[in-house]
Amino acid sequence: MVYELYYWPSIQGRGEFIRLALEEAGARYIDVARMPARAGMGVPAMMRLMEKAPAGRLPYAPPFLRAGTRVIAQTANILLFLGPRLGLVPKADESRLWAHQLQLTMADLVAEVHDAHHPIAGSLYYEEQKREARRRAGHFRTERVPQYLGYFERALAANPRGGRHLVGGSLSYVDLSMFQVLEGLDYAFPREMRRIRRRYPLLMALRQRVKERPRIAAYLASDRRLPFSTEGIFRYYPELDRT
Amino acid sequence: MVYELYYWPSIQGRGEFIRLALEEAGARYIDVARMPARAGMGVPAMMRLMEKAPAGRLPYAPPFLRAGTRVIAQTANILLFLGPRLGLVPKADESRLWAHQLQLTMADLVAEVHDAHHPIAGSLYYEEQKREARRRAGHFRTERVPQYLGYFERALAANPRGGRHLVGGSLSYVDLSMFQVLEGLDYAFPREMRRIRRRYPLLMALRQRVKERPRIAAYLASDRRLPFSTEGIFRYYPELDRT
Repeated sequence: MVYELYYWPSIQGRGEFIRLALEEAGARYIDVARMPARAGMGVPAMMRLMEKAPAGRLPYAPPFLRAGTRVIAQTANILLFLGPRLGLVPKADESRLWAHQLQLTMADLVAEVHDAHHPIAGSLYYEEQKREARRRAGHFRTERVPQYLGYFERALAANPRGGRHLVGGSLSYVDLSMFQVLEGLDYAFPREMRRIRRRYPLLMALRQRVKERPRIAAYLASDRRLPFSTEGIFRYYPELDRT
Repeated sequence: MVYELYYWPSIQGRGEFIRLALEEAGARYIDVARMPARAGMGVPAMMRLMEKAPAGRLPYAPPFLRAGTRVIAQTANILLFLGPRLGLVPKADESRLWAHQLQLTMADLVAEVHDAHHPIAGSLYYEEQKREARRRAGHFRTERVPQYLGYFERALAANPRGGRHLVGGSLSYVDLSMFQVLEGLDYAFPREMRRIRRRYPLLMALRQRVKERPRIAAYLASDRRLPFSTEGIFRYYPELDRT
C-alpha cells in the first residue's frame, strides 16, 4: 500500500503528526501537495479531492490521507486508522482508545497553540491581532502549557508498563506526536520552556529517545522535514514568549 | 451494563453530546456528578476518578464515561466507543471512521464557540475579555459559522444514501450532535442564525427530525435536560450577536 498524504506543502502544521508516524514505520507514502502540479499532484490535486471525495466523505480541511479507495481526514482520526496498520499502537481495543484519547488531548493543545498567535481570527494577519495575542499567549504559557504538560507527565508516570511510553510498553504514534508538540513549544516559547522544562523529566526523556530513533533521526536530517516557521501552527514571535 | 457519565452537573456543555446518545438509545446510565455526594457520587466522585483512573488512564477533563472497569474521556472518543454499543452508527469500519471524522469537526466548532466568548483565557471572566470577545465573535459568526455549516450541509447533500442523515441511511450519534450544535448556535446567536438558516435546508430538516424523535422529545421535556445558560459553552450575550 502506498499512502497518499495531503497537506499544505510549505509547513509542518498538523500534517507533521502523520509524517512522523509514516516515517517511523518506514511506510511508503507520497506527500502529494509537495509534488509537482504538472504531474497531476500538488495543491490542485488536494483541492480536487476536498471537493469530491469517494462516497461523499468530504474532508473539512487538510490533512487527509488516501489509502486505496478511502479518504480519511482529521489528524487524530488518520492516526487512529494508521496506528494498527503501521504497528504503532498496541493491539488491544482498550489501548487503542486510550492512545486516541491522548492524541485528542494533544489536538486540543495544538488548537490552543495556534490561537495563542491568532486569538481573534485565522483570516486576519498576526499583526492585526498582536495586542490580543500578547494577552492570550501570556495565559497560554503560564496556565495552559503547565496544565497540559503536567497532565502528560502524570500520564507517563501512571503507565503501569513504566514511564518510557505514553501507551503500553512500546513506542506508539502518541509518543511521536508528543515529541512534535515538545519540539514545537521549544521553538515557539524558548525562554518559557527553558524555565519550566525541568518539571517534566519523563517527557523530556521521551522526547530525546524519539529524536534518536534511527528513522526519525534520518527524517529530521532530510529535506522531507520542513522547518518550523512563522507560517505554521507553532510560531516564534519573541514578544509572545516570556520576557 | 449501567453506564456512568461524569460531567459538570449544572451545564449541558460537552456532556450533552453523550447524554443525547444515551437517551436516544434508551440506555441505562447515571449522571454521576448530578447525584448526591452523600451517596458517594456528585462532583467529589468525579474528582477522585480524575486523579486515579483504572490502568493509569487518566482523563484530562470531563466528560468521561465509566463502562465496567473502563474509563474513557474525550467527547468524540466516548461516542466512538458508545456508537456501536448503542446501535447509533453503522457496522462497517469505514462508516465508523467517517462518523468520527464528522464528530471531530463538530468538536472543533464547539471549541471555537467557546472561544468566541473567551478569546483570551478560560481562567478569566467574560467581562475581563469582552472587547476581544466582540471582535472574535464577529469573525466567528460571519466567517466560521458559514464555513462549518456549509460543510455539514454539503456532507448531507453528498451522502449517497440521501440527505436525511450525515452517516449512511439511518440515524447516528453524529445526527444527534449536529442537532445539539444547531440548537446551541440558535441560542447563542439568534439574530445571526435567523438571517442565515435558510441557506442550510438539509441541516434544518435534520434538526427538526431529531427534535421530534420520541425519546429525544421526552428527554428535552424532562428535568434531565439542563437549560442553555451563560455558564455553558454556547452563551447568549446580545452584544456578541449580530446587531
